Amino acid sequence: MSEIYKTLREEAYEANMEIARRNLAIYTWGNASAFDPKAHVFAIKPSGVAYNELKPQDMVIVDLEGKTVDGKLRPSSDTDTHRALYHEFVHRAFGADAAMRGICHTHSPYAVAFAQARRGVPVLGTTHADYGPEEIPCSEIMNEEEAKGSYELETGKLIIKTFIKQNKDLLKMPMVLIAGHGPFTWGKDAAEAVYHAAVLEEICKMALFTFTINPQAAPLPDYLIKKHWERKHGPNAYYGQK
Amino acid sequence: MSEIYKTLREEAYEANMEIARRNLAIYTWGNASAFDPKAHVFAIKPSGVAYNELKPQDMVIVDLEGKTVDGKLRPSSDTDTHRALYHEFVHRAFGADAAMRGICHTHSPYAVAFAQARRGVPVLGTTHADYGPEEIPCSEIMNEEEAKGSYELETGKLIIKTFIKQNKDLLKMPMVLIAGHGPFTWGKDAAEAVYHAAVLEEICKMALFTFTINPQAAPLPDYLIKKHWERKHGPNAYYGQK
Amino acid sequence: MSEIYKTLREEAYEANMEIARRNLAIYTWGNASAFDPKAHVFAIKPSGVAYNELKPQDMVIVDLEGKTVDGKLRPSSDTDTHRALYHEFVHRAFGADAAMRGICHTHSPYAVAFAQARRGVPVLGTTHADYGPEEIPCSEIMNEEEAKGSYELETGKLIIKTFIKQNKDLLKMPMVLIAGHGPFTWGKDAAEAVYHAAVLEEICKMALFTFTINPQAAPLPDYLIKKHWERKHGPNAYYGQK
Amino acid sequence: MSEIYKTLREEAYEANMEIARRNLAIYTWGNASAFDPKAHVFAIKPSGVAYNELKPQDMVIVDLEGKTVDGKLRPSSDTDTHRALYHEFVHRAFGADAAMRGICHTHSPYAVAFAQARRGVPVLGTTHADYGPEEIPCSEIMNEEEAKGSYELETGKLIIKTFIKQNKDLLKMPMVLIAGHGPFTWGKDAAEAVYHAAVLEEICKMALFTFTINPQAAPLPDYLIKKHWERKHGPNAYYGQK
Repeated sequence: MSEIYKTLREEAYEANMEIARRNLAIYTWGNASAFDPKAHVFAIKPSGVAYNELKPQDMVIVDLEGKTVDGKLRPSSDTDTHRALYHEFVHRAFGADAAMRGICHTHSPYAVAFAQARRGVPVLGTTHADYGPEEIPCSEIMNEEEAKGSYELETGKLIIKTFIKQNKDLLKMPMVLIAGHGPFTWGKDAAEAVYHAAVLEEICKMALFTFTINPQAAPLPDYLIKKHWERKHGPNAYYGQK
Repeated sequence: MSEIYKTLREEAYEANMEIARRNLAIYTWGNASAFDPKAHVFAIKPSGVAYNELKPQDMVIVDLEGKTVDGKLRPSSDTDTHRALYHEFVHRAFGADAAMRGICHTHSPYAVAFAQARRGVPVLGTTHADYGPEEIPCSEIMNEEEAKGSYELETGKLIIKTFIKQNKDLLKMPMVLIAGHGPFTWGKDAAEAVYHAAVLEEICKMALFTFTINPQAAPLPDYLIKKHWERKHGPNAYYGQK
Repeated sequence: MSEIYKTLREEAYEANMEIARRNLAIYTWGNASAFDPKAHVFAIKPSGVAYNELKPQDMVIVDLEGKTVDGKLRPSSDTDTHRALYHEFVHRAFGADAAMRGICHTHSPYAVAFAQARRGVPVLGTTHADYGPEEIPCSEIMNEEEAKGSYELETGKLIIKTFIKQNKDLLKMPMVLIAGHGPFTWGKDAAEAVYHAAVLEEICKMALFTFTINPQAAPLPDYLIKKHWERKHGPNAYYGQK
Repeated sequence: MSEIYKTLREEAYEANMEIARRNLAIYTWGNASAFDPKAHVFAIKPSGVAYNELKPQDMVIVDLEGKTVDGKLRPSSDTDTHRALYHEFVHRAFGADAAMRGICHTHSPYAVAFAQARRGVPVLGTTHADYGPEEIPCSEIMNEEEAKGSYELETGKLIIKTFIKQNKDLLKMPMVLIAGHGPFTWGKDAAEAVYHAAVLEEICKMALFTFTINPQAAPLPDYLIKKHWERKHGPNAYYGQK
């Protein structure tokens, strides 16, 4: 296993450092993890350690039951939220590999603002449509019972419930806002999860600026949303080099 | 031709790198091209390649029919928008060289916000008037038929239609906002096109701040717009060293 | 005493430089101090000296009566505000060491904006709740008599009065906004005081963005505020490595 | 004279470079000048030269009649505005040296926003009061006759008229906003003029944020404005080391 742990740690370390480089979190306000769907473990940032003190070997290896299987430090306090999501990704893969192997959580200010305003982000333009053909969902405020229970696990469950309630697909829309808290994003690996966190922050910044100019700004028509989404993601995608 | 291609590639490469240096786009969210009006070809950024991985030889040489005539990578997905504009610039030159030999597209957030708000930018001050003596036009939302057709080519045609409808001159006003999408700018070469993208972003930032202070802010009177425009662009221009 | 002075000076110097590194003040618009509760003296930034010219030995050692006991320069004009707070922290410690040994004052723009708007910052999200389980208090405008008296000492007294009036605890909520002026923050040492100044600025930025999206944004429910506060600060805190 | 010119050029060069370092202008959108009140000449930035290409010897020496007395380049297009102000400063000095020997003009976005909104900046807090005990004035829009005349000279005259009309003192309030254009600032030397430009930008940023939170935000009471102003500028000033 030690080779798998080493690879996961390096991937998670790089992703966490990218959170800091992209200014998505100050101090210790963000974390990223990298998951191995065969070994059913993930590497995650240790709790409360600043980015400039972080080392690859500090990453903690945790299994899907939440047990630390390798590492000397305590894992991120948000570990159970990551765990709930990986559990769902594995479940959703119907026996095959999980399609999503990285998760990121930040407190980037524009995304947090939408979360605190308890508003989903409508598709105001093609920048957004390129990454998801629908509103970026915002959860409801967690209820008292859940908050007093296993809070971080409930946060993960709240994400899943939000997607079910809003009839959205976790494998298609890789971003969510937890009301009153902030964003979680995911991707095919930890690097893509952080990439989506940066994209979400930029989309939220553009949306806030748009509403400042025109509080009644309308979403893109469906045919333009569809067009941009399919340019990048449909079977006939023609963006990029692949 | 290889000498022409080399020159165009270097010009286009430098312009694309300037997009990143000026923070006008994150990741791969912008592109610039350089046109040779005699050879009727332009060099453009390859699709989906990040700025920090870009090399001059990656630039793709495309002709006015949209055919890749040199280069190993797939050109920017926005290539047909550039092509439609160069076609128009050549057409507008009435047999002479095209006056505009560079085009730039970014997703800079303040310009995108006006595009998403579907608002042209009125001439609120002399900063704006120095670059164009009139509102920066915003197109209408592309209709469904156009969006389902040759989308990027239609984007170029939409720019031309917007200028005709709003009685504006492509050779005088080097900036446009595509509703629900973002800015395109052009100039006498690729460097000037990117320069205009940076200028547009700053003008949009100032306009958004102005409307935040005073939502009823009035445009400059015509005589001040004219004065500033002619200081820099009229036959009696006296700005700069020429 | 010279060893104590040296240690305090180095701690205060580092904290003041961090104000500049974190962009919490331009030019000379901020100051930090470090207190020794046994020696009853603190080291503070000299008045009007820019951060890029500051040296550890420039820090001025002042006692709780406001007398300069060591140092060649004049202490910060805000020295008496720091003094009033240290006096209170010692008083509050009931004979034991003061729990708070560092104070920071900045003119960071988002915090100043709430101070100028004369508004406390409600707990809109978990970012805020992690640092204080209640509204960040804003004082009333100082009255004319106090302003004409010992202004800086009165500023310190105004902080203490604000906490009494709003039924808040200086040892639990380490941040305050002085109406029409700006923020003061404190902590277990000078570094933590500056850390709280950076946290406050980020919380204020998020709050301003939130109100821009939704002017009627509601505070977090109490059970979520409590949950996040106790995750980091309660007897069963589980955030971080301790 | 060559020694005086050399000194003025170096002072003006340093001030212009500080405009760029402080992000008060992009490209060529700002200029600063340094005046010698005995020689009655000033050094000013050449027109349209970017900061990264600027050299001390490029600064143009101009006299109070507007004649270039030394230098190979064309002076800033705003030269006549500087000239009108220096003329007034000399006049105001009643035979003695001019108290103001530096002027700065930028297009910094928050200050431009107030100028475009045609609003003076009320004293919302002590940051502002520390630099001027009154509203930062905004001129009226220049009338057509003036704009069609010697535009830049009229801009200088408009500043002087604005101060007379609003009963303000050029030697006490070193900042003004030209409606629909942007800020001019001055100081005892070119460095202080640029310093005031940076201060103005920060004050305008804070004021815009304040109005975003509370559009009805009230100015500071007079006794607090007076207190802060006199802390730094009155006969009993006690801020700084002098």
